Amino acid sequence: MTPILTDLSIVEVAAFIAAPLGGLTLSQLGADVIRIDPIGGNIDFTRWPLNDEGHSIYWAGLNKGKRSVALDLRSPEGQEIAAAICTRAGEGRGIVTTNLPARGWMAYEALAARRDDLVMVTLIGNPDGSGALDYTVNCASGFPDVTGPGGAPVNHVLPAWDVAAGLTISTAVLAAERYRSRTGKGQKVTLSLADVMHATVSNLGFTMEVEANGTVRQPIGNDLYGAYGRDFPTRDGRRVMIVAISNRQFRAVGEATGLAEKLAMIGALMDVDLSDEGGRFAARHAISAVLEPWVAARTLAEIREAFEGTGVLWGPYQDFGQLFAEDRWHSEANPMFGRAEHHGIGSLRTPGTPLAFGAVPRGEPGASPRLGSSTEEVLVEDLGLPSTEIARLKDKGVVSL
Amino acid sequence: MTPILTDLSIVEVAAFIAAPLGGLTLSQLGADVIRIDPIGGNIDFTRWPLNDEGHSIYWAGLNKGKRSVALDLRSPEGQEIAAAICTRAGEGRGIVTTNLPARGWMAYEALAARRDDLVMVTLIGNPDGSGALDYTVNCASGFPDVTGPGGAPVNHVLPAWDVAAGLTISTAVLAAERYRSRTGKGQKVTLSLADVMHATVSNLGFTMEVEANGTVRQPIGNDLYGAYGRDFPTRDGRRVMIVAISNRQFRAVGEATGLAEKLAMIGALMDVDLSDEGGRFAARHAISAVLEPWVAARTLAEIREAFEGTGVLWGPYQDFGQLFAEDRWHSEANPMFGRAEHHGIGSLRTPGTPLAFGAVPRGEPGASPRLGSSTEEVLVEDLGLPSTEIARLKDKGVVSL
Repeated sequence: MTPILTDLSIVEVAAFIAAPLGGLTLSQLGADVIRIDPIGGNIDFTRWPLNDEGHSIYWAGLNKGKRSVALDLRSPEGQEIAAAICTRAGEGRGIVTTNLPARGWMAYEALAARRDDLVMVTLIGNPDGSGALDYTVNCASGFPDVTGPGGAPVNHVLPAWDVAAGLTISTAVLAAERYRSRTGKGQKVTLSLADVMHATVSNLGFTMEVEANGTVRQPIGNDLYGAYGRDFPTRDGRRVMIVAISNRQFRAVGEATGLAEKLAMIGALMDVDLSDEGGRFAARHAISAVLEPWVAARTLAEIREAFEGTGVLWGPYQDFGQLFAEDRWHSEANPMFGRAEHHGIGSLRTPGTPLAFGAVPRGEPGASPRLGSSTEEVLVEDLGLPSTEIARLKDKGVVSL
Repeated sequence: MTPILTDLSIVEVAAFIAAPLGGLTLSQLGADVIRIDPIGGNIDFTRWPLNDEGHSIYWAGLNKGKRSVALDLRSPEGQEIAAAICTRAGEGRGIVTTNLPARGWMAYEALAARRDDLVMVTLIGNPDGSGALDYTVNCASGFPDVTGPGGAPVNHVLPAWDVAAGLTISTAVLAAERYRSRTGKGQKVTLSLADVMHATVSNLGFTMEVEANGTVRQPIGNDLYGAYGRDFPTRDGRRVMIVAISNRQFRAVGEATGLAEKLAMIGALMDVDLSDEGGRFAARHAISAVLEPWVAARTLAEIREAFEGTGVLWGPYQDFGQLFAEDRWHSEANPMFGRAEHHGIGSLRTPGTPLAFGAVPRGEPGASPRLGSSTEEVLVEDLGLPSTEIARLKDKGVVSL
């Protein structure tokens, strides 16, 4: 972990992607993140993909570097311990994140009664508190309707709204902690997954366009909207994406392919101004017709060599296997990656934060813990419980060590 | 804006999506964000969509609530003013974000020579500094290969990597400012768009699965992986997504549709354990076969009524027009939205931050500025220039007011 968020400790009572990703982000920046789970794991503990032994690779990826505490959260004693961990005294403590129903012991009011400057960031589904998840928010976002060639909506596979919500949570924690350090005041912070989508769709102009122009964006397949960009098959059965937003980038395509003269003819051919990105968008099929045979006559390796160092914006399509095997940035050649030993799964190539801070070194990437592996440590060091009490709690099934 | 990030001022020298979205996020949380552009606008100033008068709706959406300063950034005098704005004295100042080449006057070293505790967050394309943008990063991510029914890769339309990078920038600014307030030390923070993708793909388990299991995820159309979820056409030509991850959610589907008995038969029919999410994934085609006629016999309105308050996780598909017109959360009925007057475009439904902070009220959403509309204010109030000097700079074409 990168030690930039020193003396900051977050307690996470969460499942699935968004809130755990928020905690992961803070953990990778050096915050202490204690994840509290029920004994046996929360509802995401066996989420697919699993390895041969039934350990969840999904859970491992999202909980790296966290301290795992397992408690019987249905018992009053387990709830008391959880609440005590959430509300420990100390300047960088008393911060809770959750995407579970914050009721009972975990209600903001109940925890704030124990520590009045508590910061609690709660992710809900819809703004009215009703349930929603990435896939039910995404269908409503408008994007599936313009993804692919059209005809039927296409779901995304990257849970982009969960990712955005997770990073909004890490921003929220730091904003609320900054406010507390200046005013002494804690607070409840609420975020709905649906609102992350609604705000983003508008911020990116998609519904502003509906209101301002009365137009609704239509599907255009793999073409880039409003500028030039498309995918092309290569001679060796691969595929590349080529993009040019600026004039400089468009010139680079012409120079690197040797097709500058042909491309220049398209302005007159199609009656567009090729020095304008909108003109290139209007003439995109003609531009693609010129580029297509050039790409089709070359292998991916040849294209890479032709584009290297030219300023052409391009990329190869890769499946997850090719990404893992072929992409030098998805390997330990990239300082963001190291290896970490994940409980029940083994040693894997593992990323830390994508942020490189000049003032502190990148540490080793975090490893995924065994469920409950930090229970004893937290009870002793954070709550100051004596070993006899811990033994009693263990015998009674209130804690799992 | 929500006044939570008080006494924080960011200078943004940026274009397109990621860095402007990072600044927008901080602005919506109450930070002062000064965006410096060349006179006439940066390369994103006429990015599509445009309105009838040629104003960019895209630019407006991403620069709401910012103070716009326009300078001749090629002239030494313009560069001197820009550098002075970036390095103004004051505790919450001296923070710069950019996704442009940070050379010359804008190099970290040059700015840090004027203010040694400068924080500068720089977004680059690839880790080696070569160019990349969302669409050339996305093709390499593995996701286009598993989006849609398979056969050919499908590009996303939501620039998800830009969105994730933007929110990583807002997190980075707050982390580095926290570090500075505790240690007195500024720093350069570097982030590559490609690394945001590589980290996320691994964090979500997609390449961990390749290494741990030797398996590469394959396209499954609009089905949800590892649990139950799919889209269905309705009687009135609409479409809905229905999801059940947990047992409780799956029971809710059976109860709300009256199909619980039929669904229960699928366990024996398909030899799977329906109380396990993996079992439901294995039997998903049989589950869908039971649900499909139920959905096909009903209109979207009837389905909404049948699911309301039942705990079923579902959502309607909407194009951007339907999202704007039909979704109550994408309207002023949602406290996140208000109306704001955007320069050159007009009054539009506009979101603030999706975060609701208990300690402070939500303010009005930010409006998009006229290019250069805050130049004079910043020169007078932030740099203390006399009006004679400002008139001279204007006459010489160094500033645009």
